[in-house]
Amino acid sequence: MDVRAAVAWKAGEPLSIETVNLEGPRAFEVLVEIKATGICHTDEFTRSGADPEGIFPAILGHEGAGIVREVGKGVTSLKPGDHVIPLYTPECRECEYCLNPKTNLCQKIRTTQGAGLMPDGSSRFTTKDGDPIFHYMGTSTFANFTVVPEIALAKVREDAPFDKICYIGCGVTTGIGAVINTAKVEPGSKVIVFGLGGIGLNVLQGARLVGADMIVGVDLNPAKKEMAERFGMTHFVNPAEVEGDLVAYLVNLTKGGADYTFDATGNVGVMRTALESAHKGWGESIIIGVAGAGQEISTRPFQLVTGRSWRGTAFGGARGRTDVPKIVDWYMDGKIEIDPMITHTMPLDEINTGFDLMHQGKSIRSVVLY
Amino acid sequence: MDVRAAVAWKAGEPLSIETVNLEGPRAFEVLVEIKATGICHTDEFTRSGADPEGIFPAILGHEGAGIVREVGKGVTSLKPGDHVIPLYTPECRECEYCLNPKTNLCQKIRTTQGAGLMPDGSSRFTTKDGDPIFHYMGTSTFANFTVVPEIALAKVREDAPFDKICYIGCGVTTGIGAVINTAKVEPGSKVIVFGLGGIGLNVLQGARLVGADMIVGVDLNPAKKEMAERFGMTHFVNPAEVEGDLVAYLVNLTKGGADYTFDATGNVGVMRTALESAHKGWGESIIIGVAGAGQEISTRPFQLVTGRSWRGTAFGGARGRTDVPKIVDWYMDGKIEIDPMITHTMPLDEINTGFDLMHQGKSIRSVVLY
Ligand SMILES: NC(=O)c1ccc[n+]([C@@H]2O[C@H](COP(=O)([O-])OP(=O)(O)OC[C@H]3O[C@@H](n4cnc5c(N)ncnc54)[C@H](O)[C@@H]3O)[C@@H](O)[C@H]2O)c1
Ligand SMILES: NC(=O)c1ccc[n+]([C@@H]2O[C@H](COP(=O)([O-])OP(=O)(O)OC[C@H]3O[C@@H](n4cnc5c(N)ncnc54)[C@H](O)[C@@H]3O)[C@@H](O)[C@H]2O)c1
Repeated sequence: MDVRAAVAWKAGEPLSIETVNLEGPRAFEVLVEIKATGICHTDEFTRSGADPEGIFPAILGHEGAGIVREVGKGVTSLKPGDHVIPLYTPECRECEYCLNPKTNLCQKIRTTQGAGLMPDGSSRFTTKDGDPIFHYMGTSTFANFTVVPEIALAKVREDAPFDKICYIGCGVTTGIGAVINTAKVEPGSKVIVFGLGGIGLNVLQGARLVGADMIVGVDLNPAKKEMAERFGMTHFVNPAEVEGDLVAYLVNLTKGGADYTFDATGNVGVMRTALESAHKGWGESIIIGVAGAGQEISTRPFQLVTGRSWRGTAFGGARGRTDVPKIVDWYMDGKIEIDPMITHTMPLDEINTGFDLMHQGKSIRSVVLY
Repeated sequence: MDVRAAVAWKAGEPLSIETVNLEGPRAFEVLVEIKATGICHTDEFTRSGADPEGIFPAILGHEGAGIVREVGKGVTSLKPGDHVIPLYTPECRECEYCLNPKTNLCQKIRTTQGAGLMPDGSSRFTTKDGDPIFHYMGTSTFANFTVVPEIALAKVREDAPFDKICYIGCGVTTGIGAVINTAKVEPGSKVIVFGLGGIGLNVLQGARLVGADMIVGVDLNPAKKEMAERFGMTHFVNPAEVEGDLVAYLVNLTKGGADYTFDATGNVGVMRTALESAHKGWGESIIIGVAGAGQEISTRPFQLVTGRSWRGTAFGGARGRTDVPKIVDWYMDGKIEIDPMITHTMPLDEINTGFDLMHQGKSIRSVVLY
């Protein structure tokens, strides 16, 4: 079938909106009509060429929501008409990883997904000339129709608006999940969040959801303060305004260090500050941000020997098919907010504007509406 | 009273055996007759001058066992005749740290202990001329009598031999505790231990105690293999004999990486290898070794984002007054071994020989018998 897609032909070039060919779903695959998709830093990481593992030409996009239109042979958990959120971290519920309660990193289709292919090793997208176009993160939501493996689709309630819940496909779940699944923050905790962008705001509201007492936000951009307060931040710190050592300042502010700290900047220097401003004896620091290729984190081992832990999280430690529908419920029940974070919407034809807004720091999230 | 002690007058000099003066216990303090003391790397770290926080003159020693001879005012938990192990990590059971189940780092007397003093800010040791000599780690077991705060003494059973259980005051508890308190290794786990010295052997037997399946030992010295097997090691790896990348070798050997890895070398390069040979998704790496001043650990943050955790342990995460008596029971019940690790014993007069043996790598543990 003909579909409208934003194709990334080459690293560093704007996306090109065109009509490409999509083959129907094979066994254990599902055809999804995408209704809305967010534009995330990870898409830009690949588009720009910064991702050493980027593959081209590809149809990017991994933060979508839509409706099942056709299911392949063997698909039992979904049927046409179901509302779904595609998952770049699938949940097969049978691999060694899915069966280990300590991780969400299902490995069932990792190799083919990393190679831009469906699990059988081929692509469903082709150009009008019949040349293959690669999938991206198993999701390729920058197309109005896409094919996704059954195990990479979370079924969600039908009354939830696509233009908001698409954000649960990455940013919301990453931020909230880092708090509830990875750190398991307890009520009464003191939390510091570094970076108050699309991820950091969701860390803030995750900390509020679980009843943290003190929620410190740290950002170089003072314009982030107002929105952050709306999402639960109780104290704002601008490192540019702190005289002397930032770690000492934060340890003092939190009376000994935070119980949990989160890096949502991707800056390795910030990751160190985050670790060292965690409380001696029990503080945990969680890395969410993705650092540039080749960059390293470091600290004195004494920081760990005296009781701090350094950890990380991918997709907020969430098992998508199980956890994403719950987060959709929380949104519908008003337990979490999404609407104020969707600062811009646009049709697919204007998707490059969404990337521009991200670069200019003007958007929290831009969402493409099909 | 007159006591016989090994005094560290100056950084880098051998200890000097002499008679010094010891004042009796003040309120909440206890006079202990030391019957045996191990010589540990930490004593050498301070004696040599490598410890930037070392204070001189001091009476070193922190791995002892002995008998209570007199108690100061207000002491209720101990009486003359009780057998005890001094604790360089006390357990007051009332500070913010003791009341937090996530840490063992009691802070009640930390400041004075770090300054070489008893909790009231003075020293009980003086020279024959009346000049103060500092305490060390709150224990100063390199003297036949010492004064120790009540909260820094674990009461142990009276049938346990001093010349063996003194080792529970540091090495045994550090190694076994890292496994059971810090990592909480589960039965069936795969474990890698880097460094098969006095600490590493105890990590091995901790892993055996909790039912680990695969217990890999890594050491550059092949002479360590035999003893390590006695303590539970199932596979030995000599990095000098591995062709290519050690991490890849270990990940392959453990079929994906170990569930838990432990650094017991103090080498920051080894600490990185230990982290990176932990299993993707859930592997935890625990730093036990103490690195040289100013040295740092580093890795790519991706190692953490994909599910590994980096942690550390001090005194094996043990709460001494609670846990040390249990470990003494395990020794008496044959659940753990200590005897083969005590490779040398000597009188106090020959304590410097114990340091020589450590430098020559000839001893696992030398114990001074009073
Ligand atoms: N681990 C995961 O699963 C996962 C998923 C999605 C995104 N991410 C990563 O999370 C990070 C944050 O994403 P985002 O969408 O929120 O980005 P964003 O650009 O919207 O927000 C980043 C914020 O950090 C602030 N900042 C930058 N440098 C700073 C510094 N030195 N000190 C304090 N604040 C600083 C910026 O002002 C900005 O407000 C990115 O690295 C992204 O790649 C990770
Ligand atoms: N965290 C704590 O509470 C605590 C308590 C006591 C001791 N320690 C520390 O634990 C560490 C180990 O102490 P120990 O008494 O067992 O020392 P040790 O010297 O007896 O043993 C160290 C072992 O590591 C091996 N080794 C050295 N470099 C190596 C390398 N690159 N690769 C593989 N093996 C290597 C040596 O051959 C030796 O067998 C020290 O750093 C000590 O300061 C920590």
